[in-house]
Amino acid sequence: MSEGITVHYFPLYGRGELIRTILHYNGTQFTDHIIPFAEWPAFKASGDVEFGQLPMVEVDGLKLVQSGSIARYLCQKFGYYPSHPEHVYLVESLCDYKNDVFTEYVKLKLAKDEEGLEKLFNEKLPLWLAKAEARLEKNHGGAGFFVGDSITLADLTVFQLVWEYMLSETKVAKFGPIVDQHAPKLRAWAHRIIDSSASLKAYLETKPHYDL
Amino acid sequence: MSEGITVHYFPLYGRGELIRTILHYNGTQFTDHIIPFAEWPAFKASGDVEFGQLPMVEVDGLKLVQSGSIARYLCQKFGYYPSHPEHVYLVESLCDYKNDVFTEYVKLKLAKDEEGLEKLFNEKLPLWLAKAEARLEKNHGGAGFFVGDSITLADLTVFQLVWEYMLSETKVAKFGPIVDQHAPKLRAWAHRIIDSSASLKAYLETKPHYDL
Repeated sequence: MSEGITVHYFPLYGRGELIRTILHYNGTQFTDHIIPFAEWPAFKASGDVEFGQLPMVEVDGLKLVQSGSIARYLCQKFGYYPSHPEHVYLVESLCDYKNDVFTEYVKLKLAKDEEGLEKLFNEKLPLWLAKAEARLEKNHGGAGFFVGDSITLADLTVFQLVWEYMLSETKVAKFGPIVDQHAPKLRAWAHRIIDSSASLKAYLETKPHYDL
Repeated sequence: MSEGITVHYFPLYGRGELIRTILHYNGTQFTDHIIPFAEWPAFKASGDVEFGQLPMVEVDGLKLVQSGSIARYLCQKFGYYPSHPEHVYLVESLCDYKNDVFTEYVKLKLAKDEEGLEKLFNEKLPLWLAKAEARLEKNHGGAGFFVGDSITLADLTVFQLVWEYMLSETKVAKFGPIVDQHAPKLRAWAHRIIDSSASLKAYLETKPHYDL
């Protein structure tokens, strides 16, 4: 069933990296079609991208758009999505909360608003981390994952943000102490995710570096 | 099970009206707790609102936050949410697409950017309508609802936008012709939704008018 999966996205993490992360976590082979910005108008004009936005993912004979909907589809397919409505709520609301902070980050980054970014890092990020930590803590005392007994879309979504922008090699010096102060269980949780997937681990060690 | 539902939100449509629409569509009694802006800091300080944002909905002993996650929870509870992953994708991607255009509208409206708003109405809105129409058309030739054989979160989400901002009494003179030109089946679809719920119909006739 995993044959023929293609991810079409720009040379960015942006709204595409969560999808790549899910596929790598699952050890699924896929074509990572990086579309140079110069080629985007022609690709868009092909009509293959329903709403005129990337990422677009070809899977199961479908051409999926909208990054959040693609991520959910893949997680349902791979078994990283709960079935009980209360668990669904816990997963989705945490993903929404991640999107709130990420959307603000992207806006400030694109505007090159350094003052706004520092304010985000110093004021909103600690609050965000504390809220995420509280969620983690509530489930198995923080010794497991965010919802239920196994990895879900919520873990992969929060992981992609926390790892990429706070704990990876080039970020950890600045953001590691902030994470440890406001979300002391999050670093161990992140390593729990990495340690549970050799294919994700290999990807993280070799993946390209993008600024956004 | 519907006893004791309370919606806490500002005197706005904003991110709360979809939730009110779902509850009214379903004929569910609930307390519509409108929080004046002046009372929000005290309400927020109570700690009842997990991520410090409204809307918050009390239901089934839970205090739910994040508007999209609340809407999904209610639709699952009331039977307006599909189970097949491909149908889930169709519902969710359309909701995401609605959020894209609505988020841009809110941003421009709050910035009082009249030029930006006109551009949105004249360029992006027609495209958005055409894409929504194409989705509707694909399912039962546009004679039914967006996904499957009955109303889902996708219909209620798109309806709330289209009705509120384009087809209601104060908007239809300006936006009705745009809807009819770019999405000729959408007006009949909107009336199909209203006609299928006496309680929604009654609400639409008496609800307060908010500018946003």
